[in-house]
Amino acid sequence: MQGDLVIYSGGLDSTVLLAKVHADNLGVVALHFRYGQRHDDQELSAAKRVCRFFKIPQQIIELPFPAWGFRSELLGLVGDIPCGNYDEESLKKTVVPFRNGIMISIAAGIAASLGRDTIHIGAHAGDHAVYPDCSPDFLDSMQRAVSNGTDENVCLARPFVHKSKADIVRLGAELKAPMDMSYSCYNGEEVHCGECATCIERREAFLDAGVPDLTEYKE
Amino acid sequence: MQGDLVIYSGGLDSTVLLAKVHADNLGVVALHFRYGQRHDDQELSAAKRVCRFFKIPQQIIELPFPAWGFRSELLGLVGDIPCGNYDEESLKKTVVPFRNGIMISIAAGIAASLGRDTIHIGAHAGDHAVYPDCSPDFLDSMQRAVSNGTDENVCLARPFVHKSKADIVRLGAELKAPMDMSYSCYNGEEVHCGECATCIERREAFLDAGVPDLTEYKE
Repeated sequence: MQGDLVIYSGGLDSTVLLAKVHADNLGVVALHFRYGQRHDDQELSAAKRVCRFFKIPQQIIELPFPAWGFRSELLGLVGDIPCGNYDEESLKKTVVPFRNGIMISIAAGIAASLGRDTIHIGAHAGDHAVYPDCSPDFLDSMQRAVSNGTDENVCLARPFVHKSKADIVRLGAELKAPMDMSYSCYNGEEVHCGECATCIERREAFLDAGVPDLTEYKE
Repeated sequence: MQGDLVIYSGGLDSTVLLAKVHADNLGVVALHFRYGQRHDDQELSAAKRVCRFFKIPQQIIELPFPAWGFRSELLGLVGDIPCGNYDEESLKKTVVPFRNGIMISIAAGIAASLGRDTIHIGAHAGDHAVYPDCSPDFLDSMQRAVSNGTDENVCLARPFVHKSKADIVRLGAELKAPMDMSYSCYNGEEVHCGECATCIERREAFLDAGVPDLTEYKE
């Protein structure tokens, strides 16, 4: 069946994922979730740019996580986004509990409704230590749940689960993915701050991959 | 930790579940999902009545499934709710794809945010044949996903998964659960129609359990 769904934030990893799925399939649709993340305006702008670039339709799903009681420093305007230290302790504050489970489940329901047989998520090996809902065990369990819960009509693809972010950048370069159009910064300003944990992770991935980083950073 | 979450529709099964969890725990919260089901006004009224009865706070989560592209004869006002024939073919039309996966995932995120350690769902053995997202395999996979995806901080309890609806009614009678306040009818009128598939299932469960059915039916 044509028309795979890609869970698409507008970030670096999922931009490469979208390029990969689009290269292999017709009729791909990008699903973007707005859940109150403080950097969503920039993420969404990036997602729109990239979807226009590929001529891929985008569906936006609004989830008022803060109103539902979700707690995370990534939500709303309180707390500080951790800067500099790209370590577990500071990044843990940005965990949004079970976010991937929720996005995968909604994507599975939409896919089953529309007769689309595969949903894709770009969680990668570098995410595991901090984000439990990026781990291979979690994603394997969700794949079984998606399959069981849809009479085996929908499958969850997670092609980056054993790849590093540098591997993803290398793949993006091969696919000529518009990585410079993607947006990673958790501070949510128009230009990447270059200093927050996700900016540092982004810079290091390009450096490790040996791929020129065309991202504009603030400093 | 006090304060388990119960996925609570206001229907018969989850009313008995709420009574059971409330009997065993302090600080229970009922989570009610509105996703465009045509009988939601009555379900929600029933849920409110029962929560008032138990003095349990209720959180309502709105999910615009029809706007997101979900297809089911249970959503919106098109199609006919199957009457009379309580068989697989007619009930399949009322499947809302991956609904339980979505409700469990959102409940898991809220539980992890608030430090609550258990979420409960009332899916039972009679649901398996028609609703794939009620099967033991699906619920086992979701339990693993919830555990993995929350650093083992949240557990999914599914105490009715091997019980029949008659077993649930018997348990409800033992617990003196206000089953007559619950609402099952898919037609969504104030009084149970008595003829739709879920009304027939409800009547048969009381009959099989040997418990007086205090539900008011139309005819």
